[in-house]
Amino acid sequence: MTTRPLSLEECLVEYPRHGVRGITVWRNALEGRTITDSARMLNESGLEVVSLCRGGFFPGTDVQLRERAVDDNRLAIEQAHAIGAPSVVLVCGAVPGQALDVSRSQIVDGIAAVLPDAAAAGVRLLIEPLHPMYADDRSAVNTLRQANEICDRLGSPMALGIALDVYHVWWDPELREMIDETARLGRLGAFHLCDWRTPTVDLLNDRGLMGEGCIPLGQINGWVEGAGFCGFREVEIFSHRWWSVDQGEFLKRIAASYRATVAED
Amino acid sequence: MTTRPLSLEECLVEYPRHGVRGITVWRNALEGRTITDSARMLNESGLEVVSLCRGGFFPGTDVQLRERAVDDNRLAIEQAHAIGAPSVVLVCGAVPGQALDVSRSQIVDGIAAVLPDAAAAGVRLLIEPLHPMYADDRSAVNTLRQANEICDRLGSPMALGIALDVYHVWWDPELREMIDETARLGRLGAFHLCDWRTPTVDLLNDRGLMGEGCIPLGQINGWVEGAGFCGFREVEIFSHRWWSVDQGEFLKRIAASYRATVAED
Repeated sequence: MTTRPLSLEECLVEYPRHGVRGITVWRNALEGRTITDSARMLNESGLEVVSLCRGGFFPGTDVQLRERAVDDNRLAIEQAHAIGAPSVVLVCGAVPGQALDVSRSQIVDGIAAVLPDAAAAGVRLLIEPLHPMYADDRSAVNTLRQANEICDRLGSPMALGIALDVYHVWWDPELREMIDETARLGRLGAFHLCDWRTPTVDLLNDRGLMGEGCIPLGQINGWVEGAGFCGFREVEIFSHRWWSVDQGEFLKRIAASYRATVAED
Repeated sequence: MTTRPLSLEECLVEYPRHGVRGITVWRNALEGRTITDSARMLNESGLEVVSLCRGGFFPGTDVQLRERAVDDNRLAIEQAHAIGAPSVVLVCGAVPGQALDVSRSQIVDGIAAVLPDAAAAGVRLLIEPLHPMYADDRSAVNTLRQANEICDRLGSPMALGIALDVYHVWWDPELREMIDETARLGRLGAFHLCDWRTPTVDLLNDRGLMGEGCIPLGQINGWVEGAGFCGFREVEIFSHRWWSVDQGEFLKRIAASYRATVAED
């Protein structure tokens, strides 16, 4: 999604040229060919499939909507399994005007319903806490603490973990402790990088390239590494600005800023 | 500021016509006349002065900037005293790229520096936690818990309290407990109302009129009242959309939505 103008085919050619070794596949990128063809393409590319994005959106005002969400998450788990993705990132969902605690409890129920499918498929579900500015319609789970509480409530199953995106949690006064806690409990399953621009002019698609904003990326990366995380550091930038430039040029900038901010060693 | 196109003079005429009994004065509205003239106008209007908005912005990358901020807060306290405002609302400040914990400690130092002035003037400083989407350049204090921790660190002085704005905190999973705690400790000094629109198209000036969005205003109002707060319920809407309509019409809409959402009894 970071290079949205590129097709999956193009990503698989371009990413390795820029030193990128893995890819998280968004479900819309699977459209237009069979899942077997997508899986073969990904496999032949040599890129490691990091995650499938995204499941979730469990809350709904009636039971049919919630059942449809559960079915859709089962499909996501199947797709992840088919393309060799070890995890599905969950944007948990929220319904404008529905009390957040109701949405939170529907999220717990939704995850509980699909956990057996995830476990059977060998796919891990990763709860991604979203920035509080998305609490209206995208996620009622807005902090690492809340994500951990959901894992606790569900008995801390192996098939459930947490995705950490700096954009959503950088402001959290508990960030360091909660990174430690999440990792200590074996839940830290993904780590996403980008930056927060000042001013931010669009709530969804004005993320910054690392170094363009105010997030202390080196520090947070140090905490994540220090907590023992050794998975991919994924660059996830949604940006109309960056999507409007040549994506090869953008990938060069991504590689350079990645090295400068988190891989200086 | 809610009726930004109106001058202070016009507000003092218009507000009582719509049943509004108090006003929080923004400092820019004091410009262009002496503070004595502003005070007399406010006094003659019959409106109660609720607060002066705003002090704060304590963090800075060098000591001169921080001293200037302290001086400016002293001026705000004098102005509040002069116009009979019992409190000054603090937007605490943040500096893009400066670590949030550094900003937080500069905020504590800044408040400590001006607390004696506030106490001497009989003016209460109210820390307003701001939504995490403003953690880059407006406030490193983003939750009621953090605001309470600052009060604790400063010895819980009488001249320090907290302003609660639903826009900033509605998403907080600890909201109810923290409202209770803030009130129990005698710190709840202001209560601001508006709504959160879906989609929100501008981070600063796209607030909704009560009822236009997803904030459970009746519920939060019930918690605030239940905790014993009996001050003003202040409508604070920053909105290019609403500022572009006739402000008399807007005031009618405010009065109606206020009654519908929080004063149905």
